[in-house]
Amino acid sequence: MQSPTLFFSAKPLSPSLAPRVKALYTANPPPSTAVRNDPNSMAASGPKWAQKTITLPPQRRGCHLVTPKILKEIGQDLSDFKCGLAHLFLQHTSASLTINENYDSDVRDDMETFLNKIVPEGRSAPWKHTIEGPDDMPAHIKSSMFGCSLTIPITNGKLNMGTWQGIWLCEHRDVATARTVVVTLNGI
Amino acid sequence: MQSPTLFFSAKPLSPSLAPRVKALYTANPPPSTAVRNDPNSMAASGPKWAQKTITLPPQRRGCHLVTPKILKEIGQDLSDFKCGLAHLFLQHTSASLTINENYDSDVRDDMETFLNKIVPEGRSAPWKHTIEGPDDMPAHIKSSMFGCSLTIPITNGKLNMGTWQGIWLCEHRDVATARTVVVTLNGI
Amino acid sequence: MQSPTLFFSAKPLSPSLAPRVKALYTANPPPSTAVRNDPNSMAASGPKWAQKTITLPPQRRGCHLVTPKILKEIGQDLSDFKCGLAHLFLQHTSASLTINENYDSDVRDDMETFLNKIVPEGRSAPWKHTIEGPDDMPAHIKSSMFGCSLTIPITNGKLNMGTWQGIWLCEHRDVATARTVVVTLNGI
Repeated sequence: MQSPTLFFSAKPLSPSLAPRVKALYTANPPPSTAVRNDPNSMAASGPKWAQKTITLPPQRRGCHLVTPKILKEIGQDLSDFKCGLAHLFLQHTSASLTINENYDSDVRDDMETFLNKIVPEGRSAPWKHTIEGPDDMPAHIKSSMFGCSLTIPITNGKLNMGTWQGIWLCEHRDVATARTVVVTLNGI
Repeated sequence: MQSPTLFFSAKPLSPSLAPRVKALYTANPPPSTAVRNDPNSMAASGPKWAQKTITLPPQRRGCHLVTPKILKEIGQDLSDFKCGLAHLFLQHTSASLTINENYDSDVRDDMETFLNKIVPEGRSAPWKHTIEGPDDMPAHIKSSMFGCSLTIPITNGKLNMGTWQGIWLCEHRDVATARTVVVTLNGI
Repeated sequence: MQSPTLFFSAKPLSPSLAPRVKALYTANPPPSTAVRNDPNSMAASGPKWAQKTITLPPQRRGCHLVTPKILKEIGQDLSDFKCGLAHLFLQHTSASLTINENYDSDVRDDMETFLNKIVPEGRSAPWKHTIEGPDDMPAHIKSSMFGCSLTIPITNGKLNMGTWQGIWLCEHRDVATARTVVVTLNGI
């Protein structure tokens, strides 16, 4: 069962919407100064999409702050967006992405302690799926607990996170492996 | 390691896509009646982005239904979108946003009971990160369990949630503080 | 308290941005061959939004791989997007959506075992909210643990998940009921 799909396609602003749209902020800087001098110049560039696949280097089991690694990959791309959303999608089922404190590394160690405390592993564990090792099924569980994707607002060319927020890659397997993240940027 | 970024930019519909696009719904109402009389008039206004930072007032530790507070802040903005997505991003690491039942407040009390049951706190807790108080590390854990952001579909100017769904702010610290949420609306 | 909303509206690329935009990939295939022969032809069609409500058939309590069911509903729609995001929103508070392994069904059984292990149910449970049955409050908790929505990148007309990733519907109630999902596709 399903409803018909409603499709919509971009249209230039119609004059008929002028009264309504008058309330909207639509920068339209003079060509000569737009890029160099006008902080709002991006608003004139229309909706943009950027997508790239990045690889995070292998990390030991545990929680790792990867904001710098992510920004090294997409920081330049972000600068093209005045307002938008950044979507990070981890293409794995035994690791996870989460946002948490970016300062005290003890917080990341304690998070790993918590995950190991509530997800049984080894002889005492009730898992049927053991063929990939004792750490595999616990890794799948932890991956669904924290999730494999993040969506973060972009404001004036930067990720608009709180002062103490950072992007964490949580590696739930014992053997460190490189992890792939599909980053999609959308905005104006 | 990374792949090259693919960038795409908005273009007006090309005639070459007419056969394909014919299947798409693209409202183009007569100027004179568009805003007043045509329910599809929004579809003619092109993709829009709206972003604002809102502050939720301090709440005691526990789970709180904040749909009315959120709608008071963005309800008018939502009405400008016929189809889109609303993204709410909490800029904190010791509180969380989740969607759950909007009716019986016992559900929110029981959720808090559950969180306190599975996350150790106080003398018996194994945490290294205690400098910010016994409730701080548990708050970080609960924040990653539920997450700090939500994405909700927008349909005909309203959040398209289920009948019993509501937006919850879960305050995980003992001391109530105002919480900041970056709201990003994107659609047509 | 709130900051003023910043609204932005789509604009055609301004010549002033040419130097900056030169780095962007903007396909503009010849009309006659665009749809049939040009893999980049979608990039010329401008931003699109598609939204539909789909119904997943009733499933027994537990975790279920629903990727095929989802693709049967939106696969054709996805093919209209070269680059974008697919958002799935479950309109319920006693079931959840998550991404996890798509191969060994034991992983799904073990996930259900885990959820039942950490969320108390029945006589020993401390819940106040029992009026809807002993499985209801545990279902609400599990729904917030895994969440009710997913955002997945779209690349070249397909969901860009990892080799072993699949979309799971987790039914947390004892009585199987049909579940509604609002799917929103956005991209170019």
